[in-house]
Amino acid sequence: MNNSLSIQLIGEFLGTAMLVLLGDGVCAGTNLNKSKSKGAGWIVIAFGWGFAAAFSVYCARWLCLGHYNPAVTFSMAIAHKLPWSSVLPYFLVQVLGAFVGAVLVWLTYYPHWKETDDQGAILGSFATDPAIRSYVWNFFTETIATFILVYGLLALTNGDLADGLNPLLAGFLIASVCLSLGGPTGVALNPARDFGPRLAHQLLPIANKGKSDWAYSWIPIVAPLVGGALAASLFNVLA
Amino acid sequence: MNNSLSIQLIGEFLGTAMLVLLGDGVCAGTNLNKSKSKGAGWIVIAFGWGFAAAFSVYCARWLCLGHYNPAVTFSMAIAHKLPWSSVLPYFLVQVLGAFVGAVLVWLTYYPHWKETDDQGAILGSFATDPAIRSYVWNFFTETIATFILVYGLLALTNGDLADGLNPLLAGFLIASVCLSLGGPTGVALNPARDFGPRLAHQLLPIANKGKSDWAYSWIPIVAPLVGGALAASLFNVLA
Amino acid sequence: MNNSLSIQLIGEFLGTAMLVLLGDGVCAGTNLNKSKSKGAGWIVIAFGWGFAAAFSVYCARWLCLGHYNPAVTFSMAIAHKLPWSSVLPYFLVQVLGAFVGAVLVWLTYYPHWKETDDQGAILGSFATDPAIRSYVWNFFTETIATFILVYGLLALTNGDLADGLNPLLAGFLIASVCLSLGGPTGVALNPARDFGPRLAHQLLPIANKGKSDWAYSWIPIVAPLVGGALAASLFNVLA
Amino acid sequence: MNNSLSIQLIGEFLGTAMLVLLGDGVCAGTNLNKSKSKGAGWIVIAFGWGFAAAFSVYCARWLCLGHYNPAVTFSMAIAHKLPWSSVLPYFLVQVLGAFVGAVLVWLTYYPHWKETDDQGAILGSFATDPAIRSYVWNFFTETIATFILVYGLLALTNGDLADGLNPLLAGFLIASVCLSLGGPTGVALNPARDFGPRLAHQLLPIANKGKSDWAYSWIPIVAPLVGGALAASLFNVLA
Repeated sequence: MNNSLSIQLIGEFLGTAMLVLLGDGVCAGTNLNKSKSKGAGWIVIAFGWGFAAAFSVYCARWLCLGHYNPAVTFSMAIAHKLPWSSVLPYFLVQVLGAFVGAVLVWLTYYPHWKETDDQGAILGSFATDPAIRSYVWNFFTETIATFILVYGLLALTNGDLADGLNPLLAGFLIASVCLSLGGPTGVALNPARDFGPRLAHQLLPIANKGKSDWAYSWIPIVAPLVGGALAASLFNVLA
Repeated sequence: MNNSLSIQLIGEFLGTAMLVLLGDGVCAGTNLNKSKSKGAGWIVIAFGWGFAAAFSVYCARWLCLGHYNPAVTFSMAIAHKLPWSSVLPYFLVQVLGAFVGAVLVWLTYYPHWKETDDQGAILGSFATDPAIRSYVWNFFTETIATFILVYGLLALTNGDLADGLNPLLAGFLIASVCLSLGGPTGVALNPARDFGPRLAHQLLPIANKGKSDWAYSWIPIVAPLVGGALAASLFNVLA
Repeated sequence: MNNSLSIQLIGEFLGTAMLVLLGDGVCAGTNLNKSKSKGAGWIVIAFGWGFAAAFSVYCARWLCLGHYNPAVTFSMAIAHKLPWSSVLPYFLVQVLGAFVGAVLVWLTYYPHWKETDDQGAILGSFATDPAIRSYVWNFFTETIATFILVYGLLALTNGDLADGLNPLLAGFLIASVCLSLGGPTGVALNPARDFGPRLAHQLLPIANKGKSDWAYSWIPIVAPLVGGALAASLFNVLA
Repeated sequence: MNNSLSIQLIGEFLGTAMLVLLGDGVCAGTNLNKSKSKGAGWIVIAFGWGFAAAFSVYCARWLCLGHYNPAVTFSMAIAHKLPWSSVLPYFLVQVLGAFVGAVLVWLTYYPHWKETDDQGAILGSFATDPAIRSYVWNFFTETIATFILVYGLLALTNGDLADGLNPLLAGFLIASVCLSLGGPTGVALNPARDFGPRLAHQLLPIANKGKSDWAYSWIPIVAPLVGGALAASLFNVLA
């Protein structure tokens, strides 16, 4: 990537916003009352997020590396695919992009919030929550799921997420992790994807919203960073 | 595209007819009573429209550019991928093709209309309708959804929709937009896809049909053109 | 295809048997009582048949052209992709292969037939039947659906079904036709796929079976040949 | 494959663990109470296992050949793609990898076992079981399903599972076999995938677990080896 850091950050910002618009969009569509895709099921969630990732990478691939995920960025630095000096600026624009994506989801589904009385369905259209709350086991699930994602991205692409069919394959990998490991926590896999929209949920005047469940919020931040770091370390040994 | 405008228009006409036959076909299949695919769900709608787009582009790719959508045509002109003189003729044949496609859907599912007493299900086999009627927010949803579609098509293909695997990727992109942003309005994304079949619904002697809901019809015409124009303008800046 | 006709016929026989084993297999799986995939829905049927086509072509692509369908064979002759002298031998081995495939489905799901008391579900695991019986409109539906399939195959592959990713794309095309146009008749699209298994249904001692509905059987034989011939004729004009 | 046998065995171990983590993960997700993907249906199972295979091959393709399945390894030896001396060591690490993958599934879904009172759902998250118990017919189903899988893998890849898009195509082939032939037995297709997790089910202190059904366990061991051997023998004749 020969682009200046500024260009890369613009791409990461726009791409993460698109990732969250499409990804949280599929959650809103299946969660909210009167939505045409209400209750459409896990296959819709998995392919919705997978395609969200694929096309948000395609949409900015001449600008940036298409991480859109602090766990991926951190891991790419560990795997020597990104200078460490880029890591914190990437984190910042990823969170900002995810916040903006969540605002767009709120607007796209605007009339549906006040028709929905389930506060969990509303929060679940922004951030993840565990099926059974257990900080130890939820942490484990997010860690192993992100481990598989990051190790898979490194193995698939050797760090070049944006080349050729790599975005599509990366999207199918995300669908795979969601299908297989998403049952317990809905797999955040991405600190920005969870924290940015949770902040939007806290700050926006969303009809019928409840609490933003900050008590859980550290798990989808810390566990993906741990899982990604472990994956990059193993990749450094094996590859 | 070195073909004469006439050849391109033949291709756009045939391709749009096929797009609407397959796209409205999946809506009719899931909406109409006694259909074997009745109630088959959002994943069927999304992949049905995605494959409809992919294969209608493949089927005429030596004739035309595979737009089949006035919002795409308008945006391609803004992005300097199509001469402005082609825009209005394209619009005309796209609407004609969509009308013919809708007639074919009517014939393909002919015995099922009189078994279906839900007028909304019948209209929904031709044109889109909002889950919650709100002209402001329905307009916003169609605008942002078409923005993502058109920006994505430009980014994926740089204007050459028909090359290699581009039609398949474009089809998956349409599936993605449908999965993620289709909840509020069913995403028309395409003025011809909505207006042509709505006109067919008005004019054809369809058993059990109700009103054609012209009050809503301007939204899936104007909003996609706005969303597409914004997307092409941003693409011009970024690419 | 430089192989001798005998080799081609072996490939067509084996490939059609595999097509019907996997294709009717997905119907049996969703139709029969106690099957783990009972009631799995239209997306399973569509991708099941699509993958059945894709992989049965991959599995014999060094032997034959991968038609497995008299409507495709007839159309390929019309489109000058196959010598006319091959047409009748192809038809014969395709029907034989489809018969053998249906026998294998019977054996694969052997314990499930006697647990299933719905004679329509049993026949539907072999041959197609209309959702609403109307010879005129059922004929129309099968004709237009096969027209789209054959035109699409010619446009996608220019007659070389087996090259590169063509089998996968052809499989997705079949899934598309099934998703969009399958509601009224279940889309046979293929005289051998319907006649061979219907004959097997007639001849085999299947537990709980009813009549083989020969009154309908001419539609999925004649209509696909008509639709395919029309498609090849149009392709000859346009391509 | 120029890697030493030790490197290959490390890859086979890791890849089989990942295959079973993702594959049994999708079974646990759809089987266990309170899982977000509970009851998500056969399309989720089929694509879940298909992607599990695709990405577990991608994740170790510079280390090993990506068999992860004694039936594949045995067949590759018969088809002269693998030295016979590698077969038994491959078997051993495949079973070990599958065992470890099952342990990871247990941990990933840890809080869900004690919420699930259906012992069959718990065992089904590890090993396969027949819909209707009949050793003769269950054996037949597993044999023909593995025959199709192994013949298909040989035909698709000529023994090089890891090249280019081959892992994705192999994954779709597994999805196809699952969609079409999975109804009677859930298709193990792989002795290690069944035996390793069944042993884990026996040995681990899983909440609410019942018997491990060893009486059935020989079928998903012996039948895939027979089906794979028949497929490789036919491939040797035809290719």
